[in-house]
Amino acid sequence: MQVVFTHEELITLLQPKEVRGATTQVIRGIATLAHSKTGDLSFLGNPKYKADVATSKASAILLPVGSEDKPSEDQVFYILENPSVGLAKICLKIEQSLWPKPQPGVHPTAWISPDAKVSNSACIGPLCVIEAGAVIGDGTYLQSNVFIGHGTKVGNQCWFMPGVVISAECTIKDRVRLQPGVIIGADGFGYEFIAGKHEKVPQVGNVILENDVEIGANSTVDRARFSATVIGEGTKIDNLVQVGHNVIIGKHCIICAQCGIAGSTILEDYVVLAGQVGVSGHLTIGKGAQVGGQAGITNFVAPGSKMLGNPAQSFIAEQRLEALRRRLPELFKRVSSLEERL
Amino acid sequence: MQVVFTHEELITLLQPKEVRGATTQVIRGIATLAHSKTGDLSFLGNPKYKADVATSKASAILLPVGSEDKPSEDQVFYILENPSVGLAKICLKIEQSLWPKPQPGVHPTAWISPDAKVSNSACIGPLCVIEAGAVIGDGTYLQSNVFIGHGTKVGNQCWFMPGVVISAECTIKDRVRLQPGVIIGADGFGYEFIAGKHEKVPQVGNVILENDVEIGANSTVDRARFSATVIGEGTKIDNLVQVGHNVIIGKHCIICAQCGIAGSTILEDYVVLAGQVGVSGHLTIGKGAQVGGQAGITNFVAPGSKMLGNPAQSFIAEQRLEALRRRLPELFKRVSSLEERL
Amino acid sequence: MQVVFTHEELITLLQPKEVRGATTQVIRGIATLAHSKTGDLSFLGNPKYKADVATSKASAILLPVGSEDKPSEDQVFYILENPSVGLAKICLKIEQSLWPKPQPGVHPTAWISPDAKVSNSACIGPLCVIEAGAVIGDGTYLQSNVFIGHGTKVGNQCWFMPGVVISAECTIKDRVRLQPGVIIGADGFGYEFIAGKHEKVPQVGNVILENDVEIGANSTVDRARFSATVIGEGTKIDNLVQVGHNVIIGKHCIICAQCGIAGSTILEDYVVLAGQVGVSGHLTIGKGAQVGGQAGITNFVAPGSKMLGNPAQSFIAEQRLEALRRRLPELFKRVSSLEERL
Repeated sequence: MQVVFTHEELITLLQPKEVRGATTQVIRGIATLAHSKTGDLSFLGNPKYKADVATSKASAILLPVGSEDKPSEDQVFYILENPSVGLAKICLKIEQSLWPKPQPGVHPTAWISPDAKVSNSACIGPLCVIEAGAVIGDGTYLQSNVFIGHGTKVGNQCWFMPGVVISAECTIKDRVRLQPGVIIGADGFGYEFIAGKHEKVPQVGNVILENDVEIGANSTVDRARFSATVIGEGTKIDNLVQVGHNVIIGKHCIICAQCGIAGSTILEDYVVLAGQVGVSGHLTIGKGAQVGGQAGITNFVAPGSKMLGNPAQSFIAEQRLEALRRRLPELFKRVSSLEERL
Repeated sequence: MQVVFTHEELITLLQPKEVRGATTQVIRGIATLAHSKTGDLSFLGNPKYKADVATSKASAILLPVGSEDKPSEDQVFYILENPSVGLAKICLKIEQSLWPKPQPGVHPTAWISPDAKVSNSACIGPLCVIEAGAVIGDGTYLQSNVFIGHGTKVGNQCWFMPGVVISAECTIKDRVRLQPGVIIGADGFGYEFIAGKHEKVPQVGNVILENDVEIGANSTVDRARFSATVIGEGTKIDNLVQVGHNVIIGKHCIICAQCGIAGSTILEDYVVLAGQVGVSGHLTIGKGAQVGGQAGITNFVAPGSKMLGNPAQSFIAEQRLEALRRRLPELFKRVSSLEERL
Repeated sequence: MQVVFTHEELITLLQPKEVRGATTQVIRGIATLAHSKTGDLSFLGNPKYKADVATSKASAILLPVGSEDKPSEDQVFYILENPSVGLAKICLKIEQSLWPKPQPGVHPTAWISPDAKVSNSACIGPLCVIEAGAVIGDGTYLQSNVFIGHGTKVGNQCWFMPGVVISAECTIKDRVRLQPGVIIGADGFGYEFIAGKHEKVPQVGNVILENDVEIGANSTVDRARFSATVIGEGTKIDNLVQVGHNVIIGKHCIICAQCGIAGSTILEDYVVLAGQVGVSGHLTIGKGAQVGGQAGITNFVAPGSKMLGNPAQSFIAEQRLEALRRRLPELFKRVSSLEERL
């Protein structure tokens, strides 16, 4: 990672509420408070690390409004509403210099059906395959070895990383970012048990990814049995997540790594699932509900709930029960004692 | 999805027990009961949605024998033994028109070793790689960017979707369908701890997939340490499932998404694992056993059992314990009350 | 699997402490004790299978020092310090004959940027892509359809199997083995919630894989937000594992299938995670700690601990609580009985 920022560039970029102290150092690296050395920039994003500010060797530190810390010599503090957002601005600058947008055009090793339609401003990298009837929008970048199936429509300014597969007849809107190995539109898992065998139910629906969706590496979103599996605008999905057929996910949801959502379930807007959550099929999780790690959702979840456990219940109830469970040895003793005294 | 069915075509396809009502509409879409509009066909597959029949706007509805519902004007009900099977027949028709079987032949961008043997009726799509000694059977379709390793034998009428990898020396029988990103024959996870390091145990067995196996997107089936990892005839595996080395899975099993089965475990025929189940190594799960979502199997499971929890026990016992656990606050109070009264 | 070993070759290879009995058979297969037939070699690696030794039809069996078993006619027992290690030596021999090291060179269908640097002794298989600034070391083998991003450095004697993706600017040291479909350096899952939307935090760090790391099929290791996600020397990771951004894993750890480790967590050396474990972010798991299957780690774990459950606690405490939980029906009865008697 090549990073070079002067004090002046940082001021322009961050527009800090206050600048405390000063440094002669040019910033050449980013690190955590504890691991920074001279020339690094660091930040306090999580209050957990507050104590590290005083001892950090970083030449520049982004701190939240209200922070009382004093810089040491040759150290500058930038006081911001939100240090994490400040860091994101810096990282975006770095990203743009690290990975400049490639030139439009089609790599000679890509294979594009003569019946596909690719925008002149799109960039199709090596070994991509675009089947007949597919459409690729303006400024969209298929990095390498991306497969776009028959009849799939891809919007503008998307970025699909190496090894992404999008099966036939899907719809991907604008600014969708798919990390490597994402599979969109594999068959849903549907069979009928007939005469001792599982007969396949053909899955003839599709997948729709709305604007600004991002999906993590090796996650899978199955095509619908009929109609569509839908991921709503601005929803972000982490790695190795499974989204079953006919699932409808609302806008601006967060689905952490290794969650699984079974068929025909609905997540309303702003739902958050922590890692490794399992959700049964044919359920609704209400708007803004939050589900803790490894929970198992087997019933309707009301909007705004915080759920935990398997089968999941409210966070507070589950934590209380878990605390009581840990007192079972005591309870058994108390009952024995009562029995003796009676 | 382009769908056009006349009333007469549906009668021929479905052979209904009874036709109730009539419609002048040509069927141009499929949707759930609640989301149908005029021109759509719908079905009652899950009794949970029974109340939606009366208000559905679908022009045609598949209903099970015994249904008492009456069609509204310009609406037809087809009464069938199994509406889901009826829908599957309709979807199969759609699938065949959506994704017509490609012509036999080898795409110019595929790379096939001169020492591989590919049937004249097989279709090898763009950017596939077939190593020396591999054999591809009649009518088999490698869609795009499929890798077939050295010496692997693939049977007839298989369909491997984009990004499938089958490592060396495996055996795939007939009509096997592998969704995108499936990895067959990666090394099993085996090491010996020697002098402070994990030394690799080479994995020199293979994987055998019997007839009519289907495996979901990005699932992985490891090659055996020696002899074979086997998936039995007609078994269906969902997405992101891990099957360890030397596992033997019987016939007609159902393994839902994100399950993991550790090495050398045996699943007898007709076992069903719900989503995110974990199974320890060197165990047997008896014929027809069913395991609930997120359960952890750490011991032998008798044939026909229904298991739940971690460590799993019988479904009934686990549900009873969970119900009692939820009454712990009450129990603690009752014990306190006893203590006070004594 | 073609296996041919004479008695003399096995003696040379295994250097047994003792040879008991004799066989005229050439060894042509390897199988478990229970499934062996004449001409097979078997071994007792897990004491669980001890009873199978007496009835095994294997012509040769590797047994541990201290074993009292007597061979039957035409059967030989090789007594070894560690039969599993003995078997590993045999399997290594087989592996070398099954998968001979390919010749150095670049396949004509691979695409290598003129600005990449590939060692003359490396082997770049079909349809690999190597972007500008990447470096591939001596004797490294990219098998097929491997993607190496801009500026990534790969060391010597690595083996990357089909479909591996390594994004830009990563560092892979020597003898690293990546199974098919592994994704190294996808973006970490980081967003800031601003004005009702999740704004992406660019992930501009990288991933460092130290010497002798092995990673299983379709596992994902995310690039750091800044600085590096690190997998330490000799650590072995199974299939479908998720390693979040800025995670630091020590040396010689074992991470079984489908584990997930959230961002910025530290695993010290020699940690073992069984299958489907979830670890929250910003934690430390101390040296040599062991975590049982499906456990959920939500707090600091002391070195050498054995943890179980979710939220995890010590193995002994969790097992005791689970035993008491199973006695809840009895406890409820006892309390009812006390209430009646009072």
